[in-house]
Amino acid sequence: MLKKETKINAVALLGKQIDVLDKGFIRLVDYMGSDAAIVQAARVSYGEGTKTIMEDDGLIRYLMRHRHTTPFEMCELKFHVKVPMDCWRQWIRHRTASVNEYSTRYSVAINDKKVTEPDEWRLQSIKNKQGSKGVIDKQFRKILTSQEKDLHLHADDVYEYRLENNIAREQARKDLPLSTYTEAYWKIDLHNLLHFLSLRMDEHAQLEIRSYANVIGYDFIAHLFPLTWEAFLDYDFRMAAVLLSARDIDMMQRMRDDVYIFEREDSFFGWFDKRKDGELKSNMERQEFEKKMERLDISVPWT
Amino acid sequence: MLKKETKINAVALLGKQIDVLDKGFIRLVDYMGSDAAIVQAARVSYGEGTKTIMEDDGLIRYLMRHRHTTPFEMCELKFHVKVPMDCWRQWIRHRTASVNEYSTRYSVAINDKKVTEPDEWRLQSIKNKQGSKGVIDKQFRKILTSQEKDLHLHADDVYEYRLENNIAREQARKDLPLSTYTEAYWKIDLHNLLHFLSLRMDEHAQLEIRSYANVIGYDFIAHLFPLTWEAFLDYDFRMAAVLLSARDIDMMQRMRDDVYIFEREDSFFGWFDKRKDGELKSNMERQEFEKKMERLDISVPWT
Amino acid sequence: MLKKETKINAVALLGKQIDVLDKGFIRLVDYMGSDAAIVQAARVSYGEGTKTIMEDDGLIRYLMRHRHTTPFEMCELKFHVKVPMDCWRQWIRHRTASVNEYSTRYSVAINDKKVTEPDEWRLQSIKNKQGSKGVIDKQFRKILTSQEKDLHLHADDVYEYRLENNIAREQARKDLPLSTYTEAYWKIDLHNLLHFLSLRMDEHAQLEIRSYANVIGYDFIAHLFPLTWEAFLDYDFRMAAVLLSARDIDMMQRMRDDVYIFEREDSFFGWFDKRKDGELKSNMERQEFEKKMERLDISVPWT
Amino acid sequence: MLKKETKINAVALLGKQIDVLDKGFIRLVDYMGSDAAIVQAARVSYGEGTKTIMEDDGLIRYLMRHRHTTPFEMCELKFHVKVPMDCWRQWIRHRTASVNEYSTRYSVAINDKKVTEPDEWRLQSIKNKQGSKGVIDKQFRKILTSQEKDLHLHADDVYEYRLENNIAREQARKDLPLSTYTEAYWKIDLHNLLHFLSLRMDEHAQLEIRSYANVIGYDFIAHLFPLTWEAFLDYDFRMAAVLLSARDIDMMQRMRDDVYIFEREDSFFGWFDKRKDGELKSNMERQEFEKKMERLDISVPWT
Repeated sequence: MLKKETKINAVALLGKQIDVLDKGFIRLVDYMGSDAAIVQAARVSYGEGTKTIMEDDGLIRYLMRHRHTTPFEMCELKFHVKVPMDCWRQWIRHRTASVNEYSTRYSVAINDKKVTEPDEWRLQSIKNKQGSKGVIDKQFRKILTSQEKDLHLHADDVYEYRLENNIAREQARKDLPLSTYTEAYWKIDLHNLLHFLSLRMDEHAQLEIRSYANVIGYDFIAHLFPLTWEAFLDYDFRMAAVLLSARDIDMMQRMRDDVYIFEREDSFFGWFDKRKDGELKSNMERQEFEKKMERLDISVPWT
Repeated sequence: MLKKETKINAVALLGKQIDVLDKGFIRLVDYMGSDAAIVQAARVSYGEGTKTIMEDDGLIRYLMRHRHTTPFEMCELKFHVKVPMDCWRQWIRHRTASVNEYSTRYSVAINDKKVTEPDEWRLQSIKNKQGSKGVIDKQFRKILTSQEKDLHLHADDVYEYRLENNIAREQARKDLPLSTYTEAYWKIDLHNLLHFLSLRMDEHAQLEIRSYANVIGYDFIAHLFPLTWEAFLDYDFRMAAVLLSARDIDMMQRMRDDVYIFEREDSFFGWFDKRKDGELKSNMERQEFEKKMERLDISVPWT
Repeated sequence: MLKKETKINAVALLGKQIDVLDKGFIRLVDYMGSDAAIVQAARVSYGEGTKTIMEDDGLIRYLMRHRHTTPFEMCELKFHVKVPMDCWRQWIRHRTASVNEYSTRYSVAINDKKVTEPDEWRLQSIKNKQGSKGVIDKQFRKILTSQEKDLHLHADDVYEYRLENNIAREQARKDLPLSTYTEAYWKIDLHNLLHFLSLRMDEHAQLEIRSYANVIGYDFIAHLFPLTWEAFLDYDFRMAAVLLSARDIDMMQRMRDDVYIFEREDSFFGWFDKRKDGELKSNMERQEFEKKMERLDISVPWT
Repeated sequence: MLKKETKINAVALLGKQIDVLDKGFIRLVDYMGSDAAIVQAARVSYGEGTKTIMEDDGLIRYLMRHRHTTPFEMCELKFHVKVPMDCWRQWIRHRTASVNEYSTRYSVAINDKKVTEPDEWRLQSIKNKQGSKGVIDKQFRKILTSQEKDLHLHADDVYEYRLENNIAREQARKDLPLSTYTEAYWKIDLHNLLHFLSLRMDEHAQLEIRSYANVIGYDFIAHLFPLTWEAFLDYDFRMAAVLLSARDIDMMQRMRDDVYIFEREDSFFGWFDKRKDGELKSNMERQEFEKKMERLDISVPWT
């Protein structure tokens, strides 16, 4: 929970720009609403009542818990962002937002690229096909960064050559690397923003967009909508909450009853299928269950 | 065009409530943006330039003319409205908006109904299946209003009887007349609001919702976004603009060439099909063409 | 889980009409996609692999579990529905759908009203402000139904009188009761339909719309998309899944550690505040926790 | 208008793949609806009637003319497309669609890049900041293409080197050129597709996306929805229709009255402001008016 002392005055955040990655940023251009505005809209539906702060908190938590999302739509935020294009490609997939992006058709492309410093290179994770921090030789890291620099210079040369020779900008840009920065005005309501944050603050999100999401969440939303922010962290299943499926609940009961399904013939939807060497096969749903039990501090008999 | 002198300070409009119909209203709860914010967002895409007021005007007109709608989405408005339910049924069909409506499931229904005064009754238009101001006998008008009053009282009695006897509100409300007022918070971006106004300020829109649309347009938008408002009126084909279809353009050429199609065998897509008595058959597309020519002050040879 | 034998051929459902309430219905007009189409779209993103039925099932469950919603959007359903207007008012709040509704402006209103049979009347629930099956005197039930019939007849008389006297249909309809039936074509993608079903099959949804939702779910979706349907029921927190918030998880730990917070001064966010008589105050979040523990078959020490 | 003989059987289009650009394609995966389905949905609102083909045509034209868009939403199309990323960046801006894109995070990037053949290079247009076919030296064209090839090879080398050394795919891809192809399933309703086509078949759209839009329009929509397609071409102001603004209409009247505004002091909103050399200044709105008059075959006195 946000301590009162650390709260930043909302108005002070207006126009504030926070740097992200090597050359990117997020700036709050404008916003509309507050925790109180959410409560106000909800009370049109659910009826008036005494309005102490405590009750507002309870109402916001109720709305969040039951996914009554429309009152959160009553708040709106407009950001100015500068983001590498490969990150922006993920960003723009969130459709319920308004966007004005810098046009490399009308203007010369922004002369900034995301540079990967030697210590930033990540290895491919075997497990989940995503990036991971593995051990990479220090010397090799330098080679990768140096190689990247050469490619950026090459791409710049080609782009500039085309422009100097009056090739159409819309065509000149076609071989710019995805690491090229773009800028945009991005406006979204608070409900859809929280959905964006749930997906993009998640540990499975790519590090780059996660960096932006964390800034939006912790540097802006946490201060502008403190009650909503706390409820979001508490109830979102990608944040601090845990979602138990029907199968999960069934298995918890079986564990309490001490009839572990894997000892029987039935393999419980394949959770306990074994490899030739007798070890349990990899099974995503079982492994996610194990993680949930860890979160609940309940030990699982088969590990 | 709005004269500078008549402009109302935007801040003065915040919280302003304007009455509509007999018991309804529109109140501006909050808003975000201005003509300048539209321009600011557009310049992210189209590039910077000197920012005189004149140029802003030109840019806004350009955006509106070419339906570059995203910069207009950068502005947002939140209204508190009180509307009869049959009117609200039309209103809510506009999907790109956020809504919190008064719940007659949780609360007792608002005890207000749209009453039709004797001089408000309208006759069915034969032509376009919509309402029209025809001649209705004065005495008969009074009967209609009196009859309406009886029905409202009857419905009220039944509703109250059910409530007094603890019938569930969600069920007690089921026979309330559509004329019962409801309230809602309604939030929408400027682009989608203008689309709403285009449809609902139109002469074909029902008088009731048109009354609300006109208030939103002339009492709020015209003052909050004067340049955008003027461009909207100028370029929207349901407002002051005229849209000529390929067939319309073809016919204009034929009229100039003095080869009126109806004198030939070909009837030009049925425009000049005749009834048995030799008169032109009713043809919606031709009749709309005639109206467009009237708007352009061009006379049509066959009328 | 749907048994294979009970599966209905998808094509046989096309055009099928199922009656709902006294005069309503749902008819499947057209649809696009299948479980296989969801898998096919997902594999564009996540890569190909061998396509046994088992693997498709696993992928669909994975998509549902992690709320990867876009593949479910690849399926589309179009229904023809007949619904009382007060029910339709709830239905239409789901914005991500396409709708063509019967117009009482252009046509005479459908001459059907939802009639409440004596045994259908419900009492107001004190607890959650919604309807509930309480004990109502049999004789009184008959009075309510008879009273309703009178009101319907009165409303019909007024409506017909207006029409006979050529009052505009758009105005004549204004005092029709909310129980009047309307019809619509309603088209929605599978992801948004499941969201609709989650909200409207929920026990807190009003009985009338729940009746429609159950038909859509169990009579159509369960047969057209059997793998998706099963995953939906299993993972949706309003269906068979349970969502534990950070506070819930904290309390579960405290219960295991035998340090029940209510014995201490700290009241755990008000969960254990007491009334003057020493009983626990009503607290929605605690009470929902109690229900969740019941679902998990975990006993709560304070009840 | 489409001749009956050239009409292609709709079913024959299912699964049909048409090549676009050097390595791209569009394939129709599935679709729902037809001209008849649009009419069917519209008649729910506007009432039944005899259903001859002619009347269907008239109704579809009416819906299109008056922008009654919901019946067109009742049809849905699903395409599989392969598109260069810089083109896809424009495509994805159309938000009201469902998308599953090939993931270069989970899979190795598609090893295809848009290659610009020597005769495909375009010059920057001075007038409207877009591409144009200007005269470029033949020898120079070859240099540009050769230079592009070198850059592609360089980028490929870097990408492959990273992958071989197990750098995370999500990071390895970051310097791929925007000309790299991606693939996606793209599903959209007919109304929103026509809006996409209006913007992307327009002469101001970039050649590459225009190529895709034309294939979608002329090779698919024209055959699947022939009546709708014809009405779209006829009524869309970016296609064969002309939209006259209030100012345009005013000027047409002035031209007929022979009082050309530029001869007077008033410059008609700056349309007739002059440069020092006496020539008319460039003025976008006036120049667009001139083009409209050319379309209407009306001569303008000042040119």
